[in-house]
Amino acid sequence: MKHRNLILTLLLLPLTAMATEVKSPNGNIVLNFTVEEGRPTYTLLYKGRDVVRPSHLGLELAKDKHASMGMNERDLMDGFTLIDEKTSSFDETWQPVWGETKDIRNHYVEYVATLMQQWREGVRSNTPGIQLQPRLHRRQILIRFRVYDDGIGFRYEFPQQPDLNYFLIQEERSEFAMAGDHTAWWLPGDYDTQEQETQETRLSEIRGRMKEAVNWGNSSVAVFSPTGVQTSLQMKSQDGLYINIHEAACADYATMHLELVDAETEALTTELGGGSNAYTPNPKPSDYPLPAPFTFVSHLTPDATGLKGAMQTPCETPWRTVIVSDDARDMLSSNLILNLNEPCKLEDTSWIHPTKYCGVWWEMIVGKSSWNYTDEFPSIKLDNIDWHKVKPNGRHAANNEKVKRYIDFAAKNGLDQVLVEGWNVGWEDWANMWKRDVFDFVTPYPDFDIKMLNDYAHSKGVKLLMHHETSSSTQNYERHMEKAFQLMNKYGYDAVKTGYVGDIIPRGDHHYSQSMNNHYLYVVKEAAKHHIMVNAHEATRPTGLCRTYPNLVGNESARGTEYEAFGGSRPDHTCILPFTRLQGGPMDYTPGIFVTKLSEWSNNTSWARITIAGSLALYLTMYSPLQMAADLPENYEKFDDAFQFIRDVACDWDESIYLEAEPADYITVARKAKGTDNWFIGGKCDEKGHKSVIKLNFLEKGKKYDCTIYADAKDAHYDTNPQAYTITKRVVKAGDVLKLTEAPGGGFAISLIAK
Amino acid sequence: MKHRNLILTLLLLPLTAMATEVKSPNGNIVLNFTVEEGRPTYTLLYKGRDVVRPSHLGLELAKDKHASMGMNERDLMDGFTLIDEKTSSFDETWQPVWGETKDIRNHYVEYVATLMQQWREGVRSNTPGIQLQPRLHRRQILIRFRVYDDGIGFRYEFPQQPDLNYFLIQEERSEFAMAGDHTAWWLPGDYDTQEQETQETRLSEIRGRMKEAVNWGNSSVAVFSPTGVQTSLQMKSQDGLYINIHEAACADYATMHLELVDAETEALTTELGGGSNAYTPNPKPSDYPLPAPFTFVSHLTPDATGLKGAMQTPCETPWRTVIVSDDARDMLSSNLILNLNEPCKLEDTSWIHPTKYCGVWWEMIVGKSSWNYTDEFPSIKLDNIDWHKVKPNGRHAANNEKVKRYIDFAAKNGLDQVLVEGWNVGWEDWANMWKRDVFDFVTPYPDFDIKMLNDYAHSKGVKLLMHHETSSSTQNYERHMEKAFQLMNKYGYDAVKTGYVGDIIPRGDHHYSQSMNNHYLYVVKEAAKHHIMVNAHEATRPTGLCRTYPNLVGNESARGTEYEAFGGSRPDHTCILPFTRLQGGPMDYTPGIFVTKLSEWSNNTSWARITIAGSLALYLTMYSPLQMAADLPENYEKFDDAFQFIRDVACDWDESIYLEAEPADYITVARKAKGTDNWFIGGKCDEKGHKSVIKLNFLEKGKKYDCTIYADAKDAHYDTNPQAYTITKRVVKAGDVLKLTEAPGGGFAISLIAK
Repeated sequence: MKHRNLILTLLLLPLTAMATEVKSPNGNIVLNFTVEEGRPTYTLLYKGRDVVRPSHLGLELAKDKHASMGMNERDLMDGFTLIDEKTSSFDETWQPVWGETKDIRNHYVEYVATLMQQWREGVRSNTPGIQLQPRLHRRQILIRFRVYDDGIGFRYEFPQQPDLNYFLIQEERSEFAMAGDHTAWWLPGDYDTQEQETQETRLSEIRGRMKEAVNWGNSSVAVFSPTGVQTSLQMKSQDGLYINIHEAACADYATMHLELVDAETEALTTELGGGSNAYTPNPKPSDYPLPAPFTFVSHLTPDATGLKGAMQTPCETPWRTVIVSDDARDMLSSNLILNLNEPCKLEDTSWIHPTKYCGVWWEMIVGKSSWNYTDEFPSIKLDNIDWHKVKPNGRHAANNEKVKRYIDFAAKNGLDQVLVEGWNVGWEDWANMWKRDVFDFVTPYPDFDIKMLNDYAHSKGVKLLMHHETSSSTQNYERHMEKAFQLMNKYGYDAVKTGYVGDIIPRGDHHYSQSMNNHYLYVVKEAAKHHIMVNAHEATRPTGLCRTYPNLVGNESARGTEYEAFGGSRPDHTCILPFTRLQGGPMDYTPGIFVTKLSEWSNNTSWARITIAGSLALYLTMYSPLQMAADLPENYEKFDDAFQFIRDVACDWDESIYLEAEPADYITVARKAKGTDNWFIGGKCDEKGHKSVIKLNFLEKGKKYDCTIYADAKDAHYDTNPQAYTITKRVVKAGDVLKLTEAPGGGFAISLIAK
Repeated sequence: MKHRNLILTLLLLPLTAMATEVKSPNGNIVLNFTVEEGRPTYTLLYKGRDVVRPSHLGLELAKDKHASMGMNERDLMDGFTLIDEKTSSFDETWQPVWGETKDIRNHYVEYVATLMQQWREGVRSNTPGIQLQPRLHRRQILIRFRVYDDGIGFRYEFPQQPDLNYFLIQEERSEFAMAGDHTAWWLPGDYDTQEQETQETRLSEIRGRMKEAVNWGNSSVAVFSPTGVQTSLQMKSQDGLYINIHEAACADYATMHLELVDAETEALTTELGGGSNAYTPNPKPSDYPLPAPFTFVSHLTPDATGLKGAMQTPCETPWRTVIVSDDARDMLSSNLILNLNEPCKLEDTSWIHPTKYCGVWWEMIVGKSSWNYTDEFPSIKLDNIDWHKVKPNGRHAANNEKVKRYIDFAAKNGLDQVLVEGWNVGWEDWANMWKRDVFDFVTPYPDFDIKMLNDYAHSKGVKLLMHHETSSSTQNYERHMEKAFQLMNKYGYDAVKTGYVGDIIPRGDHHYSQSMNNHYLYVVKEAAKHHIMVNAHEATRPTGLCRTYPNLVGNESARGTEYEAFGGSRPDHTCILPFTRLQGGPMDYTPGIFVTKLSEWSNNTSWARITIAGSLALYLTMYSPLQMAADLPENYEKFDDAFQFIRDVACDWDESIYLEAEPADYITVARKAKGTDNWFIGGKCDEKGHKSVIKLNFLEKGKKYDCTIYADAKDAHYDTNPQAYTITKRVVKAGDVLKLTEAPGGGFAISLIAK
């Protein structure tokens, strides 16, 4: 499946304080690394221009009462000497199970610095009066850099050794010193939600914008610093460099945030036991000097005790990534994060497949029907209710009749699966009440005949898509998960949408902590044993783990389409997400809202700021192997000619070419459907509209294509005229040029079917 | 199986501020209850003497960000009016699956007070700027008392109602105002260990003794207050009343401690987020006035956030119990705590049986051999090791040869089972390193042939007893438990000893919190599905739940025999435990050390402060359906005539008669073996020795008994001459009198086999 082209170049360099320079394969990226006054320090250049100015690397370790038993405590911050360096290069092309392209090239120069800390000290004892004799301590850590043509990744590695066996992380202090007051597209740093609207400000304006950037009414908000932001963080320098900071392969480690040091920063935020629900002015001053303004410093998500991680060597951190280019399109086509993840660990992947689906979902989000079956009780206990005797509320959506209607719709329109939310008992009081035993994941409501509905679906070539809302009661989910997966296997489900709404149980933990990240991956691994694909909502933002576990076919981890029913998102929202959220993996954005003014069919006055043509474009611009047609069947039936595009569009690709891109403004991409000669092109723009000129020079020469163009009508507008579109058909060939006008909040979609 | 004799007397009393008096069936106990200035208040009298002086009842609730969504916040402390009272009586005799007696009478007068809180207030909102309109709130709670002839139990009950649906407990404030400066046998209140030595002081001396009462080097110590003590707390008043405070039926609720208000108390200890590892002078002053000195106030074990419980109505607290008598023997024969628990919830209990066992255990505790198989690595990761290739350390005890030796020994001596600790991989670095994935509970070390050994044992009529040390990594245990139980079923194990050494993972939680108590019971319930008996070490001290789930056949939950290898326990230790630890259920004390000076066969200089005759007595005085012969087979073989008693003694009983008792001084008990006419008598005393005069008036008249007396020799002494015993045989009949002298730290054991 893979071919390797491995060239190992081992260089033993002189171990002086001179910086070591490492160039990417084409030389555009230059990394410099040195140990300066005992602290590891790096810089990054792109075509000779500063991307990361001198930045320190290190970790502060926590004091622990088990120190006397071998728990290491000295910070991994300073006192280092460089004792070894190795440089090598690597070039491999691999094939993802699903993806934007058939082949992915992983080509980098690797640099590994081995650092030694040595000191003489007594070991702390928790037995009063006992002070052990000082002894010589020697610890080694490695910092591994991979230098690509479009950026770098680096991580810390901790070999097993007597003086570094177990340790607790108080904070990781990886610095990213920016070269100027860049424009940034950022979300408030938060331990529990990623669903805020993206802010666009200069770095110097983050502090002033923070409070209004937070929707404090979200179900779980835990902002930690007035300058804390999330990754992936997209920036643009004043001289036109696009810079993105994120992480890769975050497994069994806390999710990283970035805390900006600005002119007003007096100290970096450090937890003092127990996460707070909103940033509080109680930073514990670090023992280390503050870096320069415009420096981002890593800030990990704590557990309930405020600590950031429990580590056992040999181990390593996730990769910290900086992607950089002077062309915004390179941000979108970069495979740096996938490449930094481990190859696929599943032996058999034949059961994993891209999926188009519809579902019993949107009408509940909008508020027209309910997940819960009864309104009879102020709260319920699963063991105490005879569901066949309770009084139905008459609004329960996941009922036999409606689900059959969706199955029929899916079968008729070539959709693979039907998601059904609210099928299982427990929705009466599922959220925000610190209720542990909230769902059992196996008991259907009495009006959901699980056997009949799966049989019915299968008879029509459709599968149901399982839903496991955990209500963030992870202990409860883990207790029931095996039986829940067995139920899925029994009835022929092969995919589950999981959810983590609300605050984490066990109380005090956070959505993006080490233990929760372990939980999410545990679910993915256990699901794989049952040949089940996972689409996890409200879980940690992805970091490319789908390369290693390709049954992780989707995540939400950002503000999805559901917010169109909660007040709406800005028109530029979907022109930002591919630069930020999508860096780590696909998003189950659930696009396809055709009736954008929800009041047309419900009491909800919220509305989606997008045209129908724009909605179609999202199936291309928001790459995912899992694509929903989220609107109601009856809404699609009103616009069946436009819905044809959703019927036609692929969701797995041999090739993807980003034609135009600018963060928060527009994205245009052409993709070749997997195993075919057919191309699909999507363009999406912000509230300002956009004019696209598309040269079809990527089509196969000499071939003709039936081209169908779904475009905004001349007077289309995301607010005043969202349903105005035109459908044009013609025959095109390589070299032809298409000129398209995208309306404010609009876009276009094109199918090119090889004749 | 049960016969009921239920008399319901419903009385609607005048709802004045006059106290309601409730008398026990024989009138010895008198409860008074009233609502005084809005606060529920009770007193307790025994034969007209003050046991509990006026004491308030109530709970402080936590503020929570979900208040606006229905989470209740107002304290359940004051503002109450008494709106209903009901008194009834109950008399039932039931049969435990195993126990000290064949029949248990549950005879009480019940009093239920219904209390109403009513106020007008706006609901707090977490959306800034939104303040809801005040509205009328009405909440009811019930306080249910059961008044027995030997004490009382009371609990809070929370019916489901709009204004009390979910709530978080900040602290329970149940008061127990003592009538004087009693002598108390107490353990330091601690969230994570119950294994300290019992202290004997006046109440006024607790504060002064606290620091030296704590062995701060224990693997997990979390003392919370300078006057905090554990239950069951045994006291004796200066005028000879024996008073015991504990709790019954603690399930899915935090374990209760007691905090003494003394002359120096300035405020009650309240957690402020995050449990502390040692008491710190940071009490948050309560909004409520301090009770009088010598009052105990309940103090629950917190979770990682410092909160004490998440509740959903309808629900109730555990029973808070006060047992009282002027005869110390009544403390030991009381069934009040069992009676307050729910009847057995297991339909089939045929697979549950009392068990005598030996095990591969003591030589590891003593330090002569090891649980772990190799010393090759500073730490291990289960997935990365090929156990057949690692270098054995040559000290691994759970090997085929040794286990077969123990099986042979058990078979020869009529012991039912053989415990084997250290059979499974992971012991190389199992404790205190915050290592989550520490054991898998299914993979044996290469020198433990699980199939061969079980087959071998079964061929000799013996079973192996499973061991699951969790290292307190509860998430890991829950992930592996089902497969671990399946393995047990496959190989024919029917009992497991579990362990919870070290600090709890998830980090920040405590051994006795609501979530951990839920975990322990979850394990018991899941085990029952597999017909597995559970003996949980380091778990919460029991509260009689073995009535409801009789497959919970044992707990450690106190300082067991293992401490004889860690410095030893005082000679009076086993004369205290039946008054304290054993109130809630049996203890797997693992008695039977014959070679008390460990240096005789190991490098361990610790020693057990007991004579051999005293060791034999423990099989009677320390009631348990699970009794270990803990010493090495070769040590028993040296004293085979004394070991005859362990071969003979039963561990399930039709009748038990406490003949003599005084806390920390002596205990003498006669028991009739289940389904036989045979009696066994045991006497155990402290370091002062004891003379017993036993009238055999409980024997069946006209019957003769072969009587074997295992007594201390004249010059026996727990230190200078522990192995000096005499064995005397005679024939006795009802009415005969036996006079026995117990040496310092000694005792005696008698078997009476009906002819």
